[in-house]
Amino acid sequence: MIRVGIVGATGYAGAELVRLIAGHPDVSLTVLTSRQYAGEPFEKIYPAMKGVIGLDCELYDKDSICSKADVIFLALPHKLPMAFVPDLLKNGKKVIDLSADFRFSDPAKYEAAYQPHTSKDLLSQSVYGLSEVFTDQIKNADLVGNPGCYPTSVILPLYPLLKSDLIDVTTLIADSKSGASGAGRSLSLTTHICEITESFKAYKVTGHRHKPEMDEVLAAVAGKPVDITFIPHLLPMSRGMESTIYANLKKRVTPDEIQNCLAEFYSDCPFIRLYDHGIATDTANVRGTNFCDIGFVLEKGKDRIVMMSVIDNLVKGAAGQAVQNMNIMLGLDESAGLNAVPYPL
Amino acid sequence: MIRVGIVGATGYAGAELVRLIAGHPDVSLTVLTSRQYAGEPFEKIYPAMKGVIGLDCELYDKDSICSKADVIFLALPHKLPMAFVPDLLKNGKKVIDLSADFRFSDPAKYEAAYQPHTSKDLLSQSVYGLSEVFTDQIKNADLVGNPGCYPTSVILPLYPLLKSDLIDVTTLIADSKSGASGAGRSLSLTTHICEITESFKAYKVTGHRHKPEMDEVLAAVAGKPVDITFIPHLLPMSRGMESTIYANLKKRVTPDEIQNCLAEFYSDCPFIRLYDHGIATDTANVRGTNFCDIGFVLEKGKDRIVMMSVIDNLVKGAAGQAVQNMNIMLGLDESAGLNAVPYPL
Amino acid sequence: MIRVGIVGATGYAGAELVRLIAGHPDVSLTVLTSRQYAGEPFEKIYPAMKGVIGLDCELYDKDSICSKADVIFLALPHKLPMAFVPDLLKNGKKVIDLSADFRFSDPAKYEAAYQPHTSKDLLSQSVYGLSEVFTDQIKNADLVGNPGCYPTSVILPLYPLLKSDLIDVTTLIADSKSGASGAGRSLSLTTHICEITESFKAYKVTGHRHKPEMDEVLAAVAGKPVDITFIPHLLPMSRGMESTIYANLKKRVTPDEIQNCLAEFYSDCPFIRLYDHGIATDTANVRGTNFCDIGFVLEKGKDRIVMMSVIDNLVKGAAGQAVQNMNIMLGLDESAGLNAVPYPL
Amino acid sequence: MIRVGIVGATGYAGAELVRLIAGHPDVSLTVLTSRQYAGEPFEKIYPAMKGVIGLDCELYDKDSICSKADVIFLALPHKLPMAFVPDLLKNGKKVIDLSADFRFSDPAKYEAAYQPHTSKDLLSQSVYGLSEVFTDQIKNADLVGNPGCYPTSVILPLYPLLKSDLIDVTTLIADSKSGASGAGRSLSLTTHICEITESFKAYKVTGHRHKPEMDEVLAAVAGKPVDITFIPHLLPMSRGMESTIYANLKKRVTPDEIQNCLAEFYSDCPFIRLYDHGIATDTANVRGTNFCDIGFVLEKGKDRIVMMSVIDNLVKGAAGQAVQNMNIMLGLDESAGLNAVPYPL
Repeated sequence: MIRVGIVGATGYAGAELVRLIAGHPDVSLTVLTSRQYAGEPFEKIYPAMKGVIGLDCELYDKDSICSKADVIFLALPHKLPMAFVPDLLKNGKKVIDLSADFRFSDPAKYEAAYQPHTSKDLLSQSVYGLSEVFTDQIKNADLVGNPGCYPTSVILPLYPLLKSDLIDVTTLIADSKSGASGAGRSLSLTTHICEITESFKAYKVTGHRHKPEMDEVLAAVAGKPVDITFIPHLLPMSRGMESTIYANLKKRVTPDEIQNCLAEFYSDCPFIRLYDHGIATDTANVRGTNFCDIGFVLEKGKDRIVMMSVIDNLVKGAAGQAVQNMNIMLGLDESAGLNAVPYPL
Repeated sequence: MIRVGIVGATGYAGAELVRLIAGHPDVSLTVLTSRQYAGEPFEKIYPAMKGVIGLDCELYDKDSICSKADVIFLALPHKLPMAFVPDLLKNGKKVIDLSADFRFSDPAKYEAAYQPHTSKDLLSQSVYGLSEVFTDQIKNADLVGNPGCYPTSVILPLYPLLKSDLIDVTTLIADSKSGASGAGRSLSLTTHICEITESFKAYKVTGHRHKPEMDEVLAAVAGKPVDITFIPHLLPMSRGMESTIYANLKKRVTPDEIQNCLAEFYSDCPFIRLYDHGIATDTANVRGTNFCDIGFVLEKGKDRIVMMSVIDNLVKGAAGQAVQNMNIMLGLDESAGLNAVPYPL
Repeated sequence: MIRVGIVGATGYAGAELVRLIAGHPDVSLTVLTSRQYAGEPFEKIYPAMKGVIGLDCELYDKDSICSKADVIFLALPHKLPMAFVPDLLKNGKKVIDLSADFRFSDPAKYEAAYQPHTSKDLLSQSVYGLSEVFTDQIKNADLVGNPGCYPTSVILPLYPLLKSDLIDVTTLIADSKSGASGAGRSLSLTTHICEITESFKAYKVTGHRHKPEMDEVLAAVAGKPVDITFIPHLLPMSRGMESTIYANLKKRVTPDEIQNCLAEFYSDCPFIRLYDHGIATDTANVRGTNFCDIGFVLEKGKDRIVMMSVIDNLVKGAAGQAVQNMNIMLGLDESAGLNAVPYPL
Repeated sequence: MIRVGIVGATGYAGAELVRLIAGHPDVSLTVLTSRQYAGEPFEKIYPAMKGVIGLDCELYDKDSICSKADVIFLALPHKLPMAFVPDLLKNGKKVIDLSADFRFSDPAKYEAAYQPHTSKDLLSQSVYGLSEVFTDQIKNADLVGNPGCYPTSVILPLYPLLKSDLIDVTTLIADSKSGASGAGRSLSLTTHICEITESFKAYKVTGHRHKPEMDEVLAAVAGKPVDITFIPHLLPMSRGMESTIYANLKKRVTPDEIQNCLAEFYSDCPFIRLYDHGIATDTANVRGTNFCDIGFVLEKGKDRIVMMSVIDNLVKGAAGQAVQNMNIMLGLDESAGLNAVPYPL
């Protein structure tokens, strides 16, 4: 059995990884690390897991984790992974990093948005883990930079259309909305129930770090620079992310042409569900799942398309896509451990 | 004391009118009508009002209501008001209609979105009740068509900029989000708590009736046809509406120029609160109030503006603006009955 | 593969059965019936199931369902099952009824709470499906009356203590709270998000039909009549049920004695999780699972015990326990199809 | 105009006091203190107040506050007020303390639940501010210990029945549920939206500090020691508190006798609303108001009464009752500043 370790297991993305890996038929969960809760049983931190997860949290120790795990997920704040990853790779581990540290190809773009990168050399070998788009590269990767939740929700609907050169990229706008779990388990007034109840608001309107990540991937497929307008918003709920995307089309197209473009690109992709023209997506339909549902509408008399996509920010937007990437890296069934029947409500 | 009647008092907009009129210092609530609950005490339908509102609901009767009220609010589904209003005006009443029936200047636009209009002749004398914009006309009106919630939230931030000819109207996009009270008290799976919990979704993406209403008002100030891209979304909460609005600017401007443009237009407007450049609005800040908070951001290196506005869809988006219009029509202080201190949380 | 049919598949309990049976390793879902949605794809009614559940809903037809299924779940309002069950049993089917029709031993008690019973003769052969308590009878049953959600949450913590004669039954009080999914998918102002947001209330305080169900089961183990005080409350959330139970003890006991009493009775019960003295349960910990978590506290200086239990009302309180009963009836692993790893949040 | 200062104005109770005092017709808000936010505009901490509250927060300074205010509300954690109050009283101020420091008559009871009391001598002159019960003493008080939210919700329904000697106090049980605002604005995982969504749980089941407060007041009216069983629970919402109270009656009574007992005691009490027998209360009906709604049910064939009460924990449970007490102390209309029309939803 392939052995899996999760570094940073008690944050929300880490805990969701625990859920998915513990239920995975082909791998075995062997190590959980946590700075804050080292020494404590995981089930004490997340009492839902009582009697289900028997592991204790331990402090991160390179040698210990390398001896106990073959695949290592890093669910840490950015900056930490770039220090840990080189050693893990040297020890022959497969690494999936959920932070931003290995998402960028261009170190300058990373450094403009985050901080100096101390493992720049690895960026050329790390693969951007948007599973449906970079499947072939992921197959051969030892290091995957797992995409941000917003970029996942924005790039998946747009990629096929950009590839088919249907979109005027200067007109790209993404109006995105996220559940509060995207902000993580750290305490903040923003996620205090009394402040978020009956609240809806945009945030980081002068610049969110997920924008350059989108721009880099979209530019690569568009073959020209992209400078998307991206406004994130916070929803008064826990899980779920929706992006409504606006763009001008280069030429008038029919709904069928759009549908075909998407369907061809995403044929054989078990987690992409395409909606008919004019049907809206709903975050509730993907809650707890690895699905990305995509819908669109062409406005009458205009060359403008509106696309909608929904994901669970903790699953397809984080832990689920990370497991999907592990499956691809290991040659397992892409959907292993990810195909639980969705909740109807 | 000026006597006020509310027709359709048990829907959400009607009940909110009851709250505001009952607390108004200069007018007196004398009649409540309800088809569904005729004969029942209002406080039985809304037990929060126990001991506070003593009136019973009655069936709508033209003579009865004309004998008991000087000002009449209609909080009915569209189509009914156009049948009731002519008689009320003939009896010398001031009428504020919260439906769409008297919002349009052009009957063809109304009929394209709704149904044949049986009181077309009144459209030329009815005034669109966007209080801050059409104040002077409202002062002299006997009939006000109270704006829709979405148009209120979209037009208020845009109007000054269109008036100053700063916006390329072909690029207008409004991504709007509404609390569920906007859907009213009628029962629907859409507003069933089990279906809306942890749900966020666009709806009516192929066409919402509030779009032509926006287009007509925006076109009048722009001096050319407007065909805004408008996508409404449903929030998993009760009250509150946010619109994030995207538009290309005709020329590069500074944040100060935008702020001055808004501040000049809305000087002396007690319910408009302007935010500094880059500060996001929040529906929680206007909950239960008649405020419209407006913010904006200019993107670096682009001629694009992003505006944000928030209102309480039942107050500034319906009953509150209706009371504000009544105040203006009657020559009262514009904010009478509307200046309760907001809830901090 | 054992074939399973679900009658009434589009209500909340039915849809939850669909989720569980579709994910069950040892049985196969073959028929879904729905009066309201006959002819429509199940995935259209519950779009979360898009691409996952391929069956269409059909009208209930005895012959059709008997030809297609070996085990039949009835997720219907009471009164309907008593008409359907006799034929199903005659055709050799295993039947699990989620309504109240086959929960009572004493027809008079059923009829006092519901209506005349037209299949009284079957009550003596039907087994009350409280899985952990009546396991042996369920093993041999062809017909199981699946317990109500409230009785499940109240009886499970109390049963061992009553069996050990620790409780003065004249002092029994259950203060229970349920998420809104317990009220089902039918439309009602009670479950309208705008009416339930920030609302908490008791309901049916003069008598809820689950009380006589509790009384009958508790009386049987107590060996004397039971007339519990039971007050249900509605929570502003979708899934989850908590019961706080108060009772005087017949004699002063230690926390260890209570814990041992519970632990012995529930040894080898995979879905009962016992908490240490003084630790409170939380519905969030059992959301989406078949667990019943049980906690308790002994008050200082008093002979009173306070017990707490939490379940997901749709799982252990309905569909999950029904599947558990099917597993027991068929000799499968009791937890087959029910052991998904819980969500950490 | 009477001048009012609020010490600890940026916590939830403090901010609610700001709302109420700013809207009070007979007093004027002159000082706000905050350790955390000294020097900042109050409207920056609570942006809902933008343009409404012009005051800045300042550090607590005895001389400054004494020079600027006649009445002083302390909305601080317990322990701080006992250090501040003596000086304020010496300066002739009226003081209303929202902490527990001046709620107890018996210092030993306070010290058993909290910590050593450094102003014990003032306990004999401080009055327990349960407005409807201790009105006469409050009239003449310079120092009021404003009741806890749970005690308010438990004592108000019980007091008249205990006074009439209808209850067997050894059987008293209060099962109480509170919205999360009761836990205050301090950050905690307990109030993180992702942890409280779809969560309901008991807490502090081995002892909550509001219990001895209830016991002391109930014992005084019962004329014998009271040791109530009290279990608090946390609701997944912001504002609102419900207590369901169970007690055995000393003799069989009719619903009318209970209603009369309550109605006589609470005649002329504008904030007590009594429900008919068998009608359940709802926190939504009192949200944002100073009402306490009280209902009850007598169980058939038993000498047990079930009472229900609902309050807004921040209003009647804290700031509203504090203002009511100020009104009584100053000889103002008891409901001045507290009679806004409730929200229908």
